[in-house]
Amino acid sequence: MSARPSGEGVLIALDWGTTNVRAALLDRNGRVLDERRGESGVGVFSSEEFAQNFDKLTAGWPPVPAIAAGMVGSRQGWREANYLACPVSTERLSQSLIGFDHGSHRITIVPGLTYSDADIHDVMRGEETQIAGLLAEQPDFSGIAVLPGTHSKWVRIAKGTVKRFRTYMTGEMFEALSQHTILRHSMNDAGGEWNDAAFEGAASEIFAGGSGWGRFFSIRAGHLLSGGETAYHCERLSGYLIASEFAAARRDGFDDQSIVIIGTGQLVSRYEAAATLLGLQSNTHRGTDLVWPALFNLAGRAGLVGSNVHE
Amino acid sequence: MSARPSGEGVLIALDWGTTNVRAALLDRNGRVLDERRGESGVGVFSSEEFAQNFDKLTAGWPPVPAIAAGMVGSRQGWREANYLACPVSTERLSQSLIGFDHGSHRITIVPGLTYSDADIHDVMRGEETQIAGLLAEQPDFSGIAVLPGTHSKWVRIAKGTVKRFRTYMTGEMFEALSQHTILRHSMNDAGGEWNDAAFEGAASEIFAGGSGWGRFFSIRAGHLLSGGETAYHCERLSGYLIASEFAAARRDGFDDQSIVIIGTGQLVSRYEAAATLLGLQSNTHRGTDLVWPALFNLAGRAGLVGSNVHE
Repeated sequence: MSARPSGEGVLIALDWGTTNVRAALLDRNGRVLDERRGESGVGVFSSEEFAQNFDKLTAGWPPVPAIAAGMVGSRQGWREANYLACPVSTERLSQSLIGFDHGSHRITIVPGLTYSDADIHDVMRGEETQIAGLLAEQPDFSGIAVLPGTHSKWVRIAKGTVKRFRTYMTGEMFEALSQHTILRHSMNDAGGEWNDAAFEGAASEIFAGGSGWGRFFSIRAGHLLSGGETAYHCERLSGYLIASEFAAARRDGFDDQSIVIIGTGQLVSRYEAAATLLGLQSNTHRGTDLVWPALFNLAGRAGLVGSNVHE
Repeated sequence: MSARPSGEGVLIALDWGTTNVRAALLDRNGRVLDERRGESGVGVFSSEEFAQNFDKLTAGWPPVPAIAAGMVGSRQGWREANYLACPVSTERLSQSLIGFDHGSHRITIVPGLTYSDADIHDVMRGEETQIAGLLAEQPDFSGIAVLPGTHSKWVRIAKGTVKRFRTYMTGEMFEALSQHTILRHSMNDAGGEWNDAAFEGAASEIFAGGSGWGRFFSIRAGHLLSGGETAYHCERLSGYLIASEFAAARRDGFDDQSIVIIGTGQLVSRYEAAATLLGLQSNTHRGTDLVWPALFNLAGRAGLVGSNVHE
């Protein structure tokens, strides 16, 4: 089919989140030929403005199909891609892409996922693509993937199918508690160096059975009574919160002896440290590295880049 | 000693918190002859301004001793009254008041309490006086007192002595989560009517072993997927938080089959409902009603109002 030589762009991939968009031009082997960044516009742009933003971002690139993941598919995005209810396999995800034409481009958007049981409702948008990236590498993966962040996701996968997932608002709780409660008087703004001992000490208290709930105020009281550096108190709060997430996730049935962590940076180091304290094995993948292979794989399955993908 | 007739003021009592101050003129039997309110000044006033505020608040009252509880005794208050370390009996509390002269008034301030163990530090200031009020009524009380609020306190009391206590930042967590996270899009500003069913449904999920941590985001996702009124989502958050406080407190050793709740208003109704759901017996005292008897009792023990108190 495709007689295009390697080196020529065949697919535009877009990682289109709430605040930023990354775009890549990929060749027939999924290699990145060019990569750019722009502003997201989610929640702000009209449909026309999204189109203009896309044109600006991809100026000079060939008129090839584009595939996008993330908040661009939300109600406040370019075009809404309805959530798929779990369980969802990569196959089903690739069959549920929504598409529309924009100029000479066919635009395709990856839907988010939803999970509900009697009590719980949950949604993700963007993370499903990082998971698809993991599954592009390990199609029969079974286990738990953890995606730390503002809204951390714990995801149960069985033989390549996302069975269920749960969101813990740990990152946002940290922001809210450290900036909008009495704890702000004991926190540093800068973030500072990671204090392993403070983090691990706090996390260990939780893993020994203590309640995080009954320890947040202790940070303030300890500061009041004994002083100490704000960076130290900041790390304790982080330790209490991340350990509380682990403890809750295990209670919520994400209780294997090993986890795959998908993410980047210092936050991942903390999740690795928490896993180690709990005696769990963890294996980390850089989340951003998974997105282009995932989108290339999904585009191939959906026939957007020709049969060469499956050669 | 005191030949003063009933009807004549013998003590000025002050409930001096962070935002307001209440003042009462009490007779020799502890009855309220007059009551006034003013601004607190804690964290804002200089020592002189506190003195002026006191004069304004008590203008026309006789030059009798005054006793004050609350944040007025903090470092940002009129005069610092150092924390007493638990265990603390009413006797010890009454022996640890700090005093100074202001014009023709002897001013006495009740110290706050502190509790520390290996991991935990905690402080209270003001609540110790409400507890002293409970103990003025029931000097040999043993059990758990719960004081709901911005910083809820669970207090272990044995034969009239405060053994230990723990603060849960539940009220402040509610504010932070409902105003400064993604949940704000699903909350109403007004507060609205108390929705018992939503509150109790959410609390029951926690008492059945679910994690609150893994349910906060579910409020947002549920709203996104199924709509519903913001008042309903607001009550669910309240249910998750208050039930998480109960669950944590029980884990932290406050696990009796009955509790005494000290507080007022709708918040107390929620704590009563949570206790009932857990099968606990609860007995409620209006917190504000306990302060004047407590201060009158402490003043009597400290000899500020003459021996008539012990007659």
